[in-house]
Amino acid sequence: MAILFRPVYSVDNPHWVPALRAGLADLDMRIWPDVGNPSDITHMVAWKMFPGDRDAYPNLRAVLSLSAGVNQYIGHPEFPHPAKLIRMIEPGLSSGMVDYVTSYVLRFHRDHDLVQTGGASIPWGGIMPTLAKDRVVGILGLGEMGGACARALAALGFRVRGWARTRHAIDGVGVYAGQDQLPAFLKGCDILVCLLPLTPDTENILNRDVFAQLPRGACLINAARGKHLVEDDLIPALDSGQLRMAALDVFRTEPLPADHAFWSHPRILVTPHIAAITIPETGVAAIRQAIMMLDRGEEPPGLVDFERGY
Amino acid sequence: MAILFRPVYSVDNPHWVPALRAGLADLDMRIWPDVGNPSDITHMVAWKMFPGDRDAYPNLRAVLSLSAGVNQYIGHPEFPHPAKLIRMIEPGLSSGMVDYVTSYVLRFHRDHDLVQTGGASIPWGGIMPTLAKDRVVGILGLGEMGGACARALAALGFRVRGWARTRHAIDGVGVYAGQDQLPAFLKGCDILVCLLPLTPDTENILNRDVFAQLPRGACLINAARGKHLVEDDLIPALDSGQLRMAALDVFRTEPLPADHAFWSHPRILVTPHIAAITIPETGVAAIRQAIMMLDRGEEPPGLVDFERGY
Repeated sequence: MAILFRPVYSVDNPHWVPALRAGLADLDMRIWPDVGNPSDITHMVAWKMFPGDRDAYPNLRAVLSLSAGVNQYIGHPEFPHPAKLIRMIEPGLSSGMVDYVTSYVLRFHRDHDLVQTGGASIPWGGIMPTLAKDRVVGILGLGEMGGACARALAALGFRVRGWARTRHAIDGVGVYAGQDQLPAFLKGCDILVCLLPLTPDTENILNRDVFAQLPRGACLINAARGKHLVEDDLIPALDSGQLRMAALDVFRTEPLPADHAFWSHPRILVTPHIAAITIPETGVAAIRQAIMMLDRGEEPPGLVDFERGY
Repeated sequence: MAILFRPVYSVDNPHWVPALRAGLADLDMRIWPDVGNPSDITHMVAWKMFPGDRDAYPNLRAVLSLSAGVNQYIGHPEFPHPAKLIRMIEPGLSSGMVDYVTSYVLRFHRDHDLVQTGGASIPWGGIMPTLAKDRVVGILGLGEMGGACARALAALGFRVRGWARTRHAIDGVGVYAGQDQLPAFLKGCDILVCLLPLTPDTENILNRDVFAQLPRGACLINAARGKHLVEDDLIPALDSGQLRMAALDVFRTEPLPADHAFWSHPRILVTPHIAAITIPETGVAAIRQAIMMLDRGEEPPGLVDFERGY
């Protein structure tokens, strides 16, 4: 049994190698490209698949994803089936997502961008605020991320509702399930937050038809995957006033090309895929737990159902 | 017994008159300038004092402030002593303040302004976030507003500490009291929030000496009163990097003059005194409660101690 860490970004190594060496000190840890004997490799820690991965490690049992989203593995020709795939569930990732989503929900809720850009022309002291109790925030996706955000926003006093493929019960959150209940969910959502897994069913879910079902002047936050959004539908919705503001952390092409219209649109706030990052220390603890559970024949949290897509 | 509403802003009437007429329907309600017989007036609902107020109403028993801050009445030559003064405590005001403060705390915590203004030059996906559990937020003032914000930020996972004139106990919040403990409070505060009452002791408390005691790159939020801040000390602290960002809702002169340097400084976010506004419906309920309690000889919440200043 040996664990192979397959980095992808140049920033991976300084953060991840020390954390993996510390947290898995009792295991045989290899850092790519120092693989050693490929037959030793039973587990791979990775962000995605690379050419050759499918056939390189004949004894591979599991791929431990460093990211919470795993759409990049599903259907990938290099995925080493029948290895299991485990998506990342760790508290640092959820904490970051709660901070990101809550920040933009509050900013849109109180219209801070309009108030600030209005400058001295805004009437002083004359804006009667909408309170959180009168603001409906709708969350698409009620998994680890969506659930954590729903709870945090409900604790802040917002009227929170969530929509997912199947029904999830969360205290204080109105839940909607399945395609049939999507229109009822969308109706009245002042701020729509996308935290869905990317699957064929959810790709392009943020589109003009969905925007049209929101109240006029609604706001959008996408911190899931770029392919959830039909990019060409966004600017017309903003320019017509159907949407008031959008905060986007993910894009169909990343990094977002420097000449992309989203960068300069006054009602689009672009962030460079920073909403939630797996934190090495707690991420390694989750990897360790998954390896141990798999070793005992148990199902670790985040075990992916390839059929379902997450 | 008659209640006089003394509006000051032109926006007062559409919001407040219907709410007062509805919530105090069983009382003799007068809307200035239709005072009727001034001897009838026992209570005044107001934002501040006007010339002539001191001697106009010989039977005045109480001034019910529409604002939470009451520094504008203390020592004012027109305050009709020995009338009692009641500052506004109502849930809408606290709710708005929690939304405002939490919004800017999260925005500064995650450095959203730097990330966005950096545009395409920011490294994609390469920013390891500081989590709320590793961020210290310090709140100056632990009254209705400060206490509500401290609790909300602690629930979001921040390390929250508070400072006040006297010791306040709040679950999960480190408390500091008095001038002696101010240095220990300031040391390590990544984000400093001012929600103090304005008194001779707190005027100018946000000054270069205080900024110098914060960690380098700290952020400031002032949603209390403009006179808490020594305005000339702020821009040098930002330009030197001692402070990273400031969000200001209140100013020594309001509206903030159009040529004021704060409007255009890239690290100062100006809002036009919108952080927390008294909500007519719940504000009237608080006014009603105060009138009834005073009538029974009880001390209503928010009864001002003129010596203390709030």
